[in-house]
Amino acid sequence: MIPLPVSVTRRTGGFALSGTDPIAAEPGLEGVAAWLRGLIPAGGIGLRLGADLPPEGYVLDVSARGAEIRGGSPAGVFYGAQTLRQLLPAATLRPHRGGGPPLVPAVRIEDAPRFAWRGVLLDVARHFMPVAGVLRFIDLAAFHKLNVLHLHLTDDQGWRVEVPGLPRLTSVGAWRAESMLGSRIHGRYDARPHGGFYTADDLREIVAYAAERHVTVVPEIDMPGHMQAAIAAYPELGSGAAREVRTSWGISKHVLNVREETLDFCREVLDHVCAIFPSELIGIGGDECPADEWNDPAARERIAAEGLAGPAGLQAWFTARMAEHLASRGRRVFGWDEILAGGAPAGATIAAWRGTEPAVLAARSGHDVVSCPDNSAYLDYRQSDDPGEPTPVGTLLTLADVYAFEPVPAGLTDREAERIIGAQANVWTEHMESQRRVDYQTYPRLCALAEVAWGPRRRDLADFEARLGPHLGRLDALGVGYRPPSGPRPGDARPGAPGHPRDLADRLAEVHEMTADLRAPRLTPKAGA
Amino acid sequence: MIPLPVSVTRRTGGFALSGTDPIAAEPGLEGVAAWLRGLIPAGGIGLRLGADLPPEGYVLDVSARGAEIRGGSPAGVFYGAQTLRQLLPAATLRPHRGGGPPLVPAVRIEDAPRFAWRGVLLDVARHFMPVAGVLRFIDLAAFHKLNVLHLHLTDDQGWRVEVPGLPRLTSVGAWRAESMLGSRIHGRYDARPHGGFYTADDLREIVAYAAERHVTVVPEIDMPGHMQAAIAAYPELGSGAAREVRTSWGISKHVLNVREETLDFCREVLDHVCAIFPSELIGIGGDECPADEWNDPAARERIAAEGLAGPAGLQAWFTARMAEHLASRGRRVFGWDEILAGGAPAGATIAAWRGTEPAVLAARSGHDVVSCPDNSAYLDYRQSDDPGEPTPVGTLLTLADVYAFEPVPAGLTDREAERIIGAQANVWTEHMESQRRVDYQTYPRLCALAEVAWGPRRRDLADFEARLGPHLGRLDALGVGYRPPSGPRPGDARPGAPGHPRDLADRLAEVHEMTADLRAPRLTPKAGA
Repeated sequence: MIPLPVSVTRRTGGFALSGTDPIAAEPGLEGVAAWLRGLIPAGGIGLRLGADLPPEGYVLDVSARGAEIRGGSPAGVFYGAQTLRQLLPAATLRPHRGGGPPLVPAVRIEDAPRFAWRGVLLDVARHFMPVAGVLRFIDLAAFHKLNVLHLHLTDDQGWRVEVPGLPRLTSVGAWRAESMLGSRIHGRYDARPHGGFYTADDLREIVAYAAERHVTVVPEIDMPGHMQAAIAAYPELGSGAAREVRTSWGISKHVLNVREETLDFCREVLDHVCAIFPSELIGIGGDECPADEWNDPAARERIAAEGLAGPAGLQAWFTARMAEHLASRGRRVFGWDEILAGGAPAGATIAAWRGTEPAVLAARSGHDVVSCPDNSAYLDYRQSDDPGEPTPVGTLLTLADVYAFEPVPAGLTDREAERIIGAQANVWTEHMESQRRVDYQTYPRLCALAEVAWGPRRRDLADFEARLGPHLGRLDALGVGYRPPSGPRPGDARPGAPGHPRDLADRLAEVHEMTADLRAPRLTPKAGA
Repeated sequence: MIPLPVSVTRRTGGFALSGTDPIAAEPGLEGVAAWLRGLIPAGGIGLRLGADLPPEGYVLDVSARGAEIRGGSPAGVFYGAQTLRQLLPAATLRPHRGGGPPLVPAVRIEDAPRFAWRGVLLDVARHFMPVAGVLRFIDLAAFHKLNVLHLHLTDDQGWRVEVPGLPRLTSVGAWRAESMLGSRIHGRYDARPHGGFYTADDLREIVAYAAERHVTVVPEIDMPGHMQAAIAAYPELGSGAAREVRTSWGISKHVLNVREETLDFCREVLDHVCAIFPSELIGIGGDECPADEWNDPAARERIAAEGLAGPAGLQAWFTARMAEHLASRGRRVFGWDEILAGGAPAGATIAAWRGTEPAVLAARSGHDVVSCPDNSAYLDYRQSDDPGEPTPVGTLLTLADVYAFEPVPAGLTDREAERIIGAQANVWTEHMESQRRVDYQTYPRLCALAEVAWGPRRRDLADFEARLGPHLGRLDALGVGYRPPSGPRPGDARPGAPGHPRDLADRLAEVHEMTADLRAPRLTPKAGA
């Protein structure tokens, strides 16, 4: 089973699931029962709530008489049912396979997650993924007991959310003329337009589908940088220099200006997002915002008027305005660790991606932290040194490396450590032009991340690898195109889209340099222009 | 509604589907009930069998008291339920949308299909489609009351079936080094390996999923031509000249030799296919087999020994051997109209693709015929003259052109016309590298083909187009990336993969020439070498 439950007591015997007997569910568990009914032969399963259990915890008891799942909440019961699915023969995961009633081995499992936030980011901006693919991505994440989908909806290379009253965001911003083939250092392009977007109905379906699987969708509208697609649609949002949706990877210098009308645009978009996504946390990005265009008169005027410490202070001011607006809607900011520079808004949750330092700083500053350092959790990074790996970029990030990831950095007090609310893997899709490539980069490394986020702090790689064998049989049954343990298949290589492997020491040095401003004396508004 | 039912009588009022009341189903209809239960709120629907109705026919009665579906068989009830789904608001087709109980308008519908074979071919050889995509393709076809998936599993460019004892078919034959970008006349390649294959479990899942939707999967192993992928895996099957899976589109000259061991290979593969696919008809292709390599000594020896009329007679002899083998397994041959040359085996069903002449000849020779002429039913052909159409190939084949397709050629007697058992659209995927492109090429033209195959012989395009508007709302809800009626979107063009539009008159002349051998005096075995 993956992730490994807290306690598993195997017994002799078992019982055969069968019959048309409906699943017996206590009031409040109708949703879990309906979901489960569609997946496995029903007879002999009881679902109950147990007030003594942690909210996401459960106890699964299988005896010769049947299976009982008690959970601290519907989510706990749901996780117990996911564990039950993993106890069945892998073929049972093909709902259309047929065959006799599967035998469930007798067992008692007591389980609860280590972290409350067990997340995965999906970047649908660099490559659009149709709704059906997103639903499948969520279903597979939930199978591994993840509970957050961080949906990266906008970026320089594409805007994916239809917003009423702003039609050019999708008629223009959702499409780019072509895409790079491989790492940007090679400057190759594919002469293939790309794009797509989600309607409000599409996004509501994604939210409802995820909710049925106890997954919260945290949307992200990246601002004030990573906004070239929106600026291409509405040039008045920027400096006037960006006229098209970005076709190259990397970071655009064309960022939002800080006119009040532009802030109003952001508020309008966030209002639409809040109307669709019930998540308390709303992502506003805040990462990688070059200041080149913040030397224009409007920005200087704003800096002077607000008494800010230059562009860095300006970004903190911008973030604070968005935080105020979200707060007025009962929401909180979710942002990348760059927003710590200049002081992040109170109540903001930080996605710490640049090593461990930002996580430490954020926790000590009283922010909740989601750990997702690139060297441990960026699933676009190459999985091996095999020359057949498709578009190898980033540092080497093997399955074992992900498994070794510890979300709580060393050196925190117990109280500070409680601020680390979880771990997340990030699926950036510059080099994942298809669902098959997403599968290849995501699995089985997301299995390892799931165990990092759910399972015990002390983990045993050999034991995980032993469990992974049968688990890959489950992924086969679920139709997941994971990277085989033996390495890439002939069709996985992408010689036409060359990569750019990085050395870990070099990357660590680069990250250290990137985070220099976090180590500088804290910038605060009104500290002087 | 698409396809249009035979008779629709609207009444006033309606009733609200709701409640947890299970669908009431007569014995024998549990499968339809289980399928339907997962899709729409249940309460108040009765499913019954009616011996007075045609097997695939149904009567759907909706009144203020509820909905009743009577069908001539479970398939008929299934089609009634599909019609019911189309009566609901489109949003109801998103099972995860939520919202209140939908109102069904009161109506009486009496319906039955015109043709028994309502097919669509999916080519998974030129571009592999993962299992989840195939299941979705089937689900969408069944939504349009199609009942046959012709699954083109092997070709020069890839072999997609794992066969026990023949591991190189998939370790070698399932992968090609790269693919062409656009029409082969441009000679462009993408430097991107491609491949994939289905395990027996994968195929069984596809069969079971299709069966639940009353779709028969007719597998095709194309032989003796279109075999370069298998020959690359096992060179002894060919002349020794083909050493790799074909990377260019078009027809390979490297075909199977006619040694007895090679025929045994074919029989072994067909046995495996028969073990997985319950379809009585088994596709053996037979199309486009160049005779270049059939001048070798082994072929000449065979021709002399059997007293055949050269290579054409040799192919008829080969087909007869395969037909004998399939007959010994209780199956029948399904082949392209090329197998008519030299005389097709008795009981063979012909897929007539080269204009109407082969359909006429086959029907007059006593063969069942599936009409799928390229100019009317090849969905890789370009949908418009818009320069934004992706990789425009073939003749112009608009939605209206498909809608105008008449599967029964003129000039047949009533008795001969009965041999035309149906119509089929063919989705050849040379230029469909993703599910999104498959969606774009397939819809909405497959809606038109569905109405050709199910609906009345006399059709009204304006009426169809009026119904198509709301139907596209259903496809939106189902997540189908159809071609918008307004034309291609910015991301649909593929300037890097240029096409090769054809003129209809030219193509008709070419097809006339290609079918010359069907007009020649019939070749029969033992007619002299």
